[in-house]
Amino acid sequence: MKAVILERKGEIRIGDMPMQGTMTSDTVRISVKNVGICGSDVHYYTHGRIGPYVVDSPMILGHEAAGEVVEIGDNVTSLKVGDRVCMEPGIPNAKSRAAKLGLYNLDPDVVFWATPPVHGCLIEEVVHPAEYTYKLPDSMSLAEGAMVEPLAIGLQAAKKARIVPGDRAVVIGAGTIGVMCAVSALAGGCSQVFVIDNKAEKLAIVGSYEGVVPIDFSKQNPLDEVMRATDGWGVEVVMEASGAPPVYPDFVDYACPGGKAVLVGIPIDAVPFDIAKIQSKELDIASVFRYANMYPRAISLVGSGMIDVKRLISKVYPLNRAVEAFEHAAKMEPDVVKIQIEM
Amino acid sequence: MKAVILERKGEIRIGDMPMQGTMTSDTVRISVKNVGICGSDVHYYTHGRIGPYVVDSPMILGHEAAGEVVEIGDNVTSLKVGDRVCMEPGIPNAKSRAAKLGLYNLDPDVVFWATPPVHGCLIEEVVHPAEYTYKLPDSMSLAEGAMVEPLAIGLQAAKKARIVPGDRAVVIGAGTIGVMCAVSALAGGCSQVFVIDNKAEKLAIVGSYEGVVPIDFSKQNPLDEVMRATDGWGVEVVMEASGAPPVYPDFVDYACPGGKAVLVGIPIDAVPFDIAKIQSKELDIASVFRYANMYPRAISLVGSGMIDVKRLISKVYPLNRAVEAFEHAAKMEPDVVKIQIEM
Amino acid sequence: MKAVILERKGEIRIGDMPMQGTMTSDTVRISVKNVGICGSDVHYYTHGRIGPYVVDSPMILGHEAAGEVVEIGDNVTSLKVGDRVCMEPGIPNAKSRAAKLGLYNLDPDVVFWATPPVHGCLIEEVVHPAEYTYKLPDSMSLAEGAMVEPLAIGLQAAKKARIVPGDRAVVIGAGTIGVMCAVSALAGGCSQVFVIDNKAEKLAIVGSYEGVVPIDFSKQNPLDEVMRATDGWGVEVVMEASGAPPVYPDFVDYACPGGKAVLVGIPIDAVPFDIAKIQSKELDIASVFRYANMYPRAISLVGSGMIDVKRLISKVYPLNRAVEAFEHAAKMEPDVVKIQIEM
Amino acid sequence: MKAVILERKGEIRIGDMPMQGTMTSDTVRISVKNVGICGSDVHYYTHGRIGPYVVDSPMILGHEAAGEVVEIGDNVTSLKVGDRVCMEPGIPNAKSRAAKLGLYNLDPDVVFWATPPVHGCLIEEVVHPAEYTYKLPDSMSLAEGAMVEPLAIGLQAAKKARIVPGDRAVVIGAGTIGVMCAVSALAGGCSQVFVIDNKAEKLAIVGSYEGVVPIDFSKQNPLDEVMRATDGWGVEVVMEASGAPPVYPDFVDYACPGGKAVLVGIPIDAVPFDIAKIQSKELDIASVFRYANMYPRAISLVGSGMIDVKRLISKVYPLNRAVEAFEHAAKMEPDVVKIQIEM
Repeated sequence: MKAVILERKGEIRIGDMPMQGTMTSDTVRISVKNVGICGSDVHYYTHGRIGPYVVDSPMILGHEAAGEVVEIGDNVTSLKVGDRVCMEPGIPNAKSRAAKLGLYNLDPDVVFWATPPVHGCLIEEVVHPAEYTYKLPDSMSLAEGAMVEPLAIGLQAAKKARIVPGDRAVVIGAGTIGVMCAVSALAGGCSQVFVIDNKAEKLAIVGSYEGVVPIDFSKQNPLDEVMRATDGWGVEVVMEASGAPPVYPDFVDYACPGGKAVLVGIPIDAVPFDIAKIQSKELDIASVFRYANMYPRAISLVGSGMIDVKRLISKVYPLNRAVEAFEHAAKMEPDVVKIQIEM
Repeated sequence: MKAVILERKGEIRIGDMPMQGTMTSDTVRISVKNVGICGSDVHYYTHGRIGPYVVDSPMILGHEAAGEVVEIGDNVTSLKVGDRVCMEPGIPNAKSRAAKLGLYNLDPDVVFWATPPVHGCLIEEVVHPAEYTYKLPDSMSLAEGAMVEPLAIGLQAAKKARIVPGDRAVVIGAGTIGVMCAVSALAGGCSQVFVIDNKAEKLAIVGSYEGVVPIDFSKQNPLDEVMRATDGWGVEVVMEASGAPPVYPDFVDYACPGGKAVLVGIPIDAVPFDIAKIQSKELDIASVFRYANMYPRAISLVGSGMIDVKRLISKVYPLNRAVEAFEHAAKMEPDVVKIQIEM
Repeated sequence: MKAVILERKGEIRIGDMPMQGTMTSDTVRISVKNVGICGSDVHYYTHGRIGPYVVDSPMILGHEAAGEVVEIGDNVTSLKVGDRVCMEPGIPNAKSRAAKLGLYNLDPDVVFWATPPVHGCLIEEVVHPAEYTYKLPDSMSLAEGAMVEPLAIGLQAAKKARIVPGDRAVVIGAGTIGVMCAVSALAGGCSQVFVIDNKAEKLAIVGSYEGVVPIDFSKQNPLDEVMRATDGWGVEVVMEASGAPPVYPDFVDYACPGGKAVLVGIPIDAVPFDIAKIQSKELDIASVFRYANMYPRAISLVGSGMIDVKRLISKVYPLNRAVEAFEHAAKMEPDVVKIQIEM
Repeated sequence: MKAVILERKGEIRIGDMPMQGTMTSDTVRISVKNVGICGSDVHYYTHGRIGPYVVDSPMILGHEAAGEVVEIGDNVTSLKVGDRVCMEPGIPNAKSRAAKLGLYNLDPDVVFWATPPVHGCLIEEVVHPAEYTYKLPDSMSLAEGAMVEPLAIGLQAAKKARIVPGDRAVVIGAGTIGVMCAVSALAGGCSQVFVIDNKAEKLAIVGSYEGVVPIDFSKQNPLDEVMRATDGWGVEVVMEASGAPPVYPDFVDYACPGGKAVLVGIPIDAVPFDIAKIQSKELDIASVFRYANMYPRAISLVGSGMIDVKRLISKVYPLNRAVEAFEHAAKMEPDVVKIQIEM
């Protein structure tokens, strides 16, 4: 089977690999159709590792996938052959304490696509548990289906922010995850989202959503802007989606008394927190680790038209140009949100 | 001052009344511009009472108002003369235990416009506490400002439903409050709202909002429809906005396991609840009584374009045709959502 | 293997039955030691059915059990032979949508001990999934271990009441479940719990817990008592644990503005609810169906001494007097809380 | 009137001061009886300032007070002359946006006793708003009444931890606030609280409460202890009550997946946070700023016997030995929790 293989740091090739996994009564076999390239895929490509996860043997990349069901296990009733689906890339141990609590994303034994030594889904067919395979409605394309994974992160952040209708939000960072946070905050009840970045192209893309107010911090003082727009009260929700260390001492300044912050970006090293400042507004600070139970929500919001992800698909490459697709993604062009590969 | 006075049951006239209230350092004087007619105004007109509240002397009607500030008290800094504003009609005792908890709507000593013996706001000018008077953004008209009061009820329901982004909702009843619940559920994070009624005209109006699926129960089985659309799972949120007794034994059938219901409609007598059925899904049932702290949220959502209330203003009458306006409202035509009087 | 078998309505015998279930790599085999008799066991004995669940072939009774591990499956690391344990009687499908959400008690496919046609645990040995088998600390006896099941219901109610430290509670009904609600409310943060019943013996037992104020409604007006004790404010939490139809129209009267009620008792037919009264205090009404993720909490609270269940074990019968034990339980003596059988 | 006056940094004297405030229809006059010495009082004494709050003219100290009502305003119905009461030291503007939300502690205009330039309550009589004056039950002494203020901080932390019954907690720091957090966590639903400090005397005091497990980090590895006691899962609640900078990079290690942390201690400078570690468990981090609506809860819990504060009153000095009392408090002896002055 054709697959996109990270041979080693800096070297990707299209090669043959056997199908991963074997069918059981509870799995489905899926013909993979669209796969988005994530920042983590690019990072493995350019650095050969992410923290403790090191690519020391060839690994199939990719974990943002949609496809078509071609075989179902004996017990599977939720899906049938021919269904268009997207797949959740992390499979927990359902018997774990975290999974029993509904926090299956926090099970330390989760097996996650394209996280060494686990292979990813940039391969013609995959076998996947039926309960982590989700049917797409007719109103959603496969390309949109492959956007569900990154959107799920934004929705997890929006859920953890416990948004009350009419909250206003600040999102720091207009990268792919920042955009997902912004659209999720809007869909999740915010009346207005201020997105802060210093790249005009990124701000233009996120600013195209009704309700987003882009703020270019290279040209404007974002705190002044937010406070002016909120009569000095601040916003109810702050989502940190940049991971940039200089942001942390002050990111809570945007919040109103009793506000909520969500930590989405992942700085590599410890960052400074001003506890007294946090306390003076009695902020609640939530954090997210991937997502749990968010796929049905993401599909429902995209399928009903509440969230438009189509405009975020910058370019789709065919499988035979997958190496080129990764080179493109690795350039980190500011006007590129998501590059996909069509199998 | 010209005012719209309910002389007694069935008799409304436009007459002269002195301004209600006197200026203090914490109040503002407002030239009233737009006032919506509420079902309760109509009910006092047609029945002379609502439960224990009896109209036994002439009373100025109206509590859904927007206007323009014409004078401010010495301590007022949040508003200035010329500001376009809307006003919250219920003023609690700020020292009460409920108000200290942030539940000022539950203070039994609330003084509420047009609730006997308290006069309403269908008068040329009112004096109002500054902290219950809210500035409208430039993007909002005075007519929209007078829609904030009924919208606040829908938003209170949406807040109490603790919507998670991507929840689906059923709203039972497509009257004015049902519509407010539906648009609030959508703005508050729902991907889709099924609205159930048997009046085609009402369903057409609420169905004009993207994300609303109208269900005419005179033609379709609403439970079948909802279960089919949710693959048999049910919806996360059920809002009862009809107050119709036959609805109560079964309204929880629409809900999914772990779902939430909100009681918005007000049946006159006790209604039957099927406890075992509620328990089998471990439903949480919230209830609403008017609203608290919802005006800023409603203004923010209308002002930013997230909620459109303009299409719900069926007709605006000038003050000199106020009696006609009430007669129109009393007809309860199914294609009428809100009638306003422009002072 | 010796087992306590409900032959048919009204006829229990001790007989031989094969061990239920077979060992897998994820199960443990347990020598059953203590089993409590639940009201549902008695009800199957005296009526032959509970609602749709009909005993139409001989069934082993019992679902409140503790015992000792005698064999473990290959994958089991959380337990070892010789561990003293208690067992959760309901096993869901871990792949179900409800289970993925952490609401495994709401999975309609739960297999629950002693619910026809599923056999119970009043048998010498059982095979059970390791993840629903919980180790007891040294500080807990096996008799206390068999009390975890009914306590878990009280704790589920206390969890759903979202108690804030210093809340006060009313518990209606001083039966076994009422007592479990009362001790759970106290352990869960309440400063005081008013328990309402008309049986002096029951009130004496629950009243022996510090913090419980028993109210005999045959002698006192409970609403007057509660309102006097709370300066007319009411209590933050009302737990309905009687299932008695006359309670429902007014049980919310005990609650304060913004209070919470929990439906624990299960009336057979629909009961009247006064919606306007509920709304005037904006009550939240939660409901419980068994429990999920409560066994570790119950064990922790009993093991650390925060909750004493020993005083609630009225009598322990040996296995060979099991029929006598059931006859005793069926008498419903007001001074009996829990009867156990020691295998 | 006799008062305890901080003349300047390092100099306290007992002198005459006029009564502060004047009676209105909504206030009460109180004969002050017991006043606790807080760390902040000592800090003003030894340093002359706390951050931006500088003592630049003589100031009456004290804010933890109980006393007896000697006069009531015309509108006051909740209190009568002779009532034994304790008083909340911070008075917000009830018309502020924060107060309307129930977050009156976050109103920036709060006027707080013994915070320059506002005088405190170490004076024979004070005038105080009735709604911030709370009647003590007969079961509570005035000395206990003066403990309500510091206890309210612990309860605020316990409330913000959203404790579920049977949670376990770690409290870092066994100072006065750490003790208040520990007893509040226990009263609020925790089954067990691990308190970490390196002072044996402090640990002995807090360890005298049933359910507290003291851990001396100079002798034991606290993380090992906590993980061993929780089978490697961690605790659901971590309360940081030390404010010690070295604690912050790792304090979340104690938490279980999905756990909650509360920031109570106040480090002077920014401290390092390990975001990736926080995210890997998806922790929620709350913070507290004094308290709101906690006095009735604290009084209820002490009055019903659920929380014992008597053992924390280390010594009570008469008014004429107030200077000695402050000198004693300033020694920060590890076996002293609270020193009070009896007026």
